[in-house]
Amino acid sequence: MRFLPREEKFFTMFEGMGQMLIEGANLLSSLLSDVRLAPVRAEEIKALEHKADNLTHELLTKLNRTFITPFDREDIHALSTGLDDVLDLIDTTSMRIVIYKIAVLPPGAEELGRIIVAQVREIAAALAMLHRPDGILKHCVEINRLEDDADRISRSGIGLLFEHETNPIALIKQKELYEVLELTTDMCEDVANIIETIVLKAA
Amino acid sequence: MRFLPREEKFFTMFEGMGQMLIEGANLLSSLLSDVRLAPVRAEEIKALEHKADNLTHELLTKLNRTFITPFDREDIHALSTGLDDVLDLIDTTSMRIVIYKIAVLPPGAEELGRIIVAQVREIAAALAMLHRPDGILKHCVEINRLEDDADRISRSGIGLLFEHETNPIALIKQKELYEVLELTTDMCEDVANIIETIVLKAA
Amino acid sequence: MRFLPREEKFFTMFEGMGQMLIEGANLLSSLLSDVRLAPVRAEEIKALEHKADNLTHELLTKLNRTFITPFDREDIHALSTGLDDVLDLIDTTSMRIVIYKIAVLPPGAEELGRIIVAQVREIAAALAMLHRPDGILKHCVEINRLEDDADRISRSGIGLLFEHETNPIALIKQKELYEVLELTTDMCEDVANIIETIVLKAA
Repeated sequence: MRFLPREEKFFTMFEGMGQMLIEGANLLSSLLSDVRLAPVRAEEIKALEHKADNLTHELLTKLNRTFITPFDREDIHALSTGLDDVLDLIDTTSMRIVIYKIAVLPPGAEELGRIIVAQVREIAAALAMLHRPDGILKHCVEINRLEDDADRISRSGIGLLFEHETNPIALIKQKELYEVLELTTDMCEDVANIIETIVLKAA
Repeated sequence: MRFLPREEKFFTMFEGMGQMLIEGANLLSSLLSDVRLAPVRAEEIKALEHKADNLTHELLTKLNRTFITPFDREDIHALSTGLDDVLDLIDTTSMRIVIYKIAVLPPGAEELGRIIVAQVREIAAALAMLHRPDGILKHCVEINRLEDDADRISRSGIGLLFEHETNPIALIKQKELYEVLELTTDMCEDVANIIETIVLKAA
Repeated sequence: MRFLPREEKFFTMFEGMGQMLIEGANLLSSLLSDVRLAPVRAEEIKALEHKADNLTHELLTKLNRTFITPFDREDIHALSTGLDDVLDLIDTTSMRIVIYKIAVLPPGAEELGRIIVAQVREIAAALAMLHRPDGILKHCVEINRLEDDADRISRSGIGLLFEHETNPIALIKQKELYEVLELTTDMCEDVANIIETIVLKAA
């Protein structure tokens, strides 16, 4: 069994997903720096999300047809759906800004966008090391640390909303924006935990 | 191993779940066509949901006691809990309309109800083909297409709410109704993805 | 294979998690009996949640490095993350009360706190019996029964909010408190279902 060629294609596909995540997070961050870009960026993110859906589908199909996989089958499945979920949440965020016609973003949104960019860069770096995972865990630790930051920012942002925003409908919109950004950083942490599991099993 | 009798009972149980889903979606759709029926339909859906809980429990108990299963154990588990989750969400939707005392449904609700009926019919058709899955994938594709429709309807419905509904408490109620209907169509898509996985593995 | 020593350490770790859950639920219940304690209790819960994170991490690391486990690997994984999720939700609840500066709790909150205490005591009792599971299922049944109670209380509480609370921002806060308490009881039920699966497989 151990002499069978390992399925290197999986590594290449995961690296491709990592690059798409970086592209998506950059588009979102650009939108969060200048909300007037929202309709344009949302379209670009939507197109990217469709490409990622296709790659994920291809990856899962390959997984179901491959007898020998480089990692446990369920870990490959969890990793690829987790990566797809991150991009889905980036898409949900940008669509929400467009549909809610949010004209002024809450103070923490831009910083949360930068945190998501930093997290997906760590994810992409980790994915590029999957075939040789020495040193990969420090990327996972950093993704978790960034999530703690995001948690603090979104909690204090929502606290400020409840203190200062007296228009309930505006409050609902801004609060949901914080929540979906925070959820995106949570999903990055979930991906980091899956990567950690894969690496520890291989140790 | 391959000569052991396969556990045909699982197929029958999944067909039973498919029929319950159709019954539940029809009750919900009837409610969404005429909101005055809400208390009656909610009771009927609640009774059906208890029956489905029992069938799911029976199925999972059988799974845990069966050595040879027709598909991977974790796929049977995921499929049965996914089907149960669809009916739970139908129940949550109808209960929400009753508890929130929603007297006028938002414009997209009735159409979302029809989409859920269409999705569970496709699910039931797919479940009836599990023992001989040629042609089953086209049902999964259709469930995904219907989910895209639902996504568009609920997004545009929520956008209209934010434009026209000036009463925040009414907005909260109507928005949550859209969200739980959309979540139900997402769960149907999850079920389709599980069925697809089962079929691709068996190919 | 059957003569290899079973990994008794897992049982001890799960018992430790059970004790932390009881401690966390007691802190939350104390907070829900007297909302003026919220900032102090939230800090204590936060500290406990960090300890539980570390124990969960230790448990998952051990799991990934252990060849023979007392139960199926994926069940140990699901159980330990499920227990951690219960404490995370207790933490989320207490933080929400602090950040939202909720000065008056909704009528059902205190009773929901007592239900969560009752549920985690049942969980801890079940965890202490994992190595010898005769009679463990009655604890799972009781956790499910308690969740039904919580469901009724939170549904009727939210119904009352929509009837009597005319301030939309106050309504949002109180409604979310009900939702996160209800979610905590759901997560206890998920843990009970995982324990049930483990026991049925071992039967």
